[in-house]
Amino acid sequence: MAISKKIKASISQSSMIRRMFEQGVELKKKFGADKVYDFSLGNPNLPPPEAFKNELIGLIREEIPFKHGYPPNAGIAEVRQAVADKISKTTGLKMEAGHIVMSCGAGGALNVILKALLDPGDEVVVPVPYFVEYAFYVENYGGVLTKAKTAEDFSLDISSMAGAITGRTKAVIINSPNNPTGRVYAENEITALAKLLAQKGREYGKTIYLISDEPYAEIVFDGIKVPSVLKAYPDSILAYSYSKTLSVPGERIGYIAVNPAIDESSDLIDAIILCTRISGFVNAPALMQRVIARLQDTKVDVEVYQKKRDLLCGGLSKAGYQFALPQGAFYLFVKSPLADDVKFTEKLIEQNILAVPGSGFGAPGYFRIAYCVDDKVIAGSMEGFAAAIRECV
Amino acid sequence: MAISKKIKASISQSSMIRRMFEQGVELKKKFGADKVYDFSLGNPNLPPPEAFKNELIGLIREEIPFKHGYPPNAGIAEVRQAVADKISKTTGLKMEAGHIVMSCGAGGALNVILKALLDPGDEVVVPVPYFVEYAFYVENYGGVLTKAKTAEDFSLDISSMAGAITGRTKAVIINSPNNPTGRVYAENEITALAKLLAQKGREYGKTIYLISDEPYAEIVFDGIKVPSVLKAYPDSILAYSYSKTLSVPGERIGYIAVNPAIDESSDLIDAIILCTRISGFVNAPALMQRVIARLQDTKVDVEVYQKKRDLLCGGLSKAGYQFALPQGAFYLFVKSPLADDVKFTEKLIEQNILAVPGSGFGAPGYFRIAYCVDDKVIAGSMEGFAAAIRECV
Repeated sequence: MAISKKIKASISQSSMIRRMFEQGVELKKKFGADKVYDFSLGNPNLPPPEAFKNELIGLIREEIPFKHGYPPNAGIAEVRQAVADKISKTTGLKMEAGHIVMSCGAGGALNVILKALLDPGDEVVVPVPYFVEYAFYVENYGGVLTKAKTAEDFSLDISSMAGAITGRTKAVIINSPNNPTGRVYAENEITALAKLLAQKGREYGKTIYLISDEPYAEIVFDGIKVPSVLKAYPDSILAYSYSKTLSVPGERIGYIAVNPAIDESSDLIDAIILCTRISGFVNAPALMQRVIARLQDTKVDVEVYQKKRDLLCGGLSKAGYQFALPQGAFYLFVKSPLADDVKFTEKLIEQNILAVPGSGFGAPGYFRIAYCVDDKVIAGSMEGFAAAIRECV
Repeated sequence: MAISKKIKASISQSSMIRRMFEQGVELKKKFGADKVYDFSLGNPNLPPPEAFKNELIGLIREEIPFKHGYPPNAGIAEVRQAVADKISKTTGLKMEAGHIVMSCGAGGALNVILKALLDPGDEVVVPVPYFVEYAFYVENYGGVLTKAKTAEDFSLDISSMAGAITGRTKAVIINSPNNPTGRVYAENEITALAKLLAQKGREYGKTIYLISDEPYAEIVFDGIKVPSVLKAYPDSILAYSYSKTLSVPGERIGYIAVNPAIDESSDLIDAIILCTRISGFVNAPALMQRVIARLQDTKVDVEVYQKKRDLLCGGLSKAGYQFALPQGAFYLFVKSPLADDVKFTEKLIEQNILAVPGSGFGAPGYFRIAYCVDDKVIAGSMEGFAAAIRECV
């Protein structure tokens, strides 16, 4: 066998999560799917809003020339315009269609942005814990992922960010609301980060880009708003996905928004469009582009997630678990009652509960619960969670 | 500005085609779109078959749990099964769902395959002329594209292929029916190539993979059949797309089929699945996966393309142009009446005709006509084609 050495190494690294997944499959076979409490995947359980279905059927029936044909690599002109208009309305910035490139979800967006930016050896800083795929995305283009600590409540630790930035730093990726913590970075954190990046940029005589990965931007609780990174920092780039906003993660539709304030932003946009093409994405799926253009003000019922959060957090708190209350997304990052988080998730498996060790997100000593599941999964798991922690104290 | 050096270089290389595209836009503005004969893009003008629309609406109405949710990275199990069944039926091989990975079109498929296979410096051989994107796809993973000549009629030149293979060769990419020539490699050519790769593999003590890029496999004329590469060579991998079969290139749906005869094929499949995930594709668009599973025996009316070929070839032949008659796809690769093909396409532009210089496909001295256009574009262009060649003789 002769697969790429790099990929061979990556496969053996990912085997822990894979083993867990396989254990889950085994459990479900043995006890029945309804007896297993699967919190391992961020696959939203809410169906898409009814408007999604209706607009989709409308579009399929409409006569549109080359409806399913190749759109421009950057996306369909009217779709880019609809996205730009929405951002302009929300932020007060003057975004134009030309600043938007439609993407295959946020995963596609991030890969295209990083390919456009990185030279081998360039560093990309992320606050820990971080979405595990970032390590691959950065490595895909020869970049090096470097890590900064966050505070106890997972807010940004600016001095740790400062310490992680070097002369090789090309970009910082933030993800707010955060996977796996559910943390939303507050306005003052974003402002402080922007100030730091501007100052470090001057110090090193280069631009440090702020890439904001925002698939959960619309999934926020208690009236909180996600501050606009585009407004806070000129050299910023947004990676957005409709996966969670509309509960359509399988359809791979999102966009990249390039801050008009970026120096020679049209060069960067040209690079992003070329990378969309040559990476094999070619374009974001055409029908999904058209449908999201008509659903700019539509989203799933976020209150449902908020109630799930409250149900879960109430129960776990009573059982003695410690965590910072999530402000968005549908993840809870819980302190592991055992120092060894992998061992504790194994204890949870004995209770038919599947959760992901914090080690998978660069943060040992925690575990992640994805609570985008039916309420009865949450309710049914409580006894098991209580039993598992009892064994540890 | 600080975009990646590699990408900066690629942008300036692609500027020729871009300039042409812009000239086309100018022409259409000046003379009206109906007075410009645009043969530059392979964007099929046939609408998708009616069944595509009907199945799509049916699927949108059906109750399917997690219909638009994340499917497994490899694709939806039933969809992989439907594809495997179709290949088994057509080839007589025993393909299983596990040998299939759904992809974002053939572009996505090729990138994922190459990422799974290539180590930096590995060589990939292509017969010339070749689809221009291959150079990017190979380079994305640090590979080196090497070229082999073809015969006058664009059939495979086995001794030139032999000369191009070295100890660093990891794979050969063929594309049949071919873009830009419309050539379908005959059974004996494929057999000879398979024999060569097996022999060279023994000689160098390694496996040389044959990657067959087949988006045009169903677009063939005069009763010709595309021979099965999977049957001819054990170490073969298929990259397929429904883009042209169903006229849906904007929807990015295709698959990878790994030959079950490959040594430790499950390692390769695991690598391909991981690469689908970490490249940011994550999965092929979910709704499109489901719809193609129901359309395994559906395709556009290929006779329409055959008639376009005949209309175009008849007219150009009368005007004095020289070419090999295409057996499939919807491209004609014509000998340039001037040695300088770029100069000749500029002459065509004076006649409001847009075609792509052969230099873009590694074959100077030719130009490509994409005839997936309305018959009246073909008919209307004939005078201009005749005038352009008259100026050269």
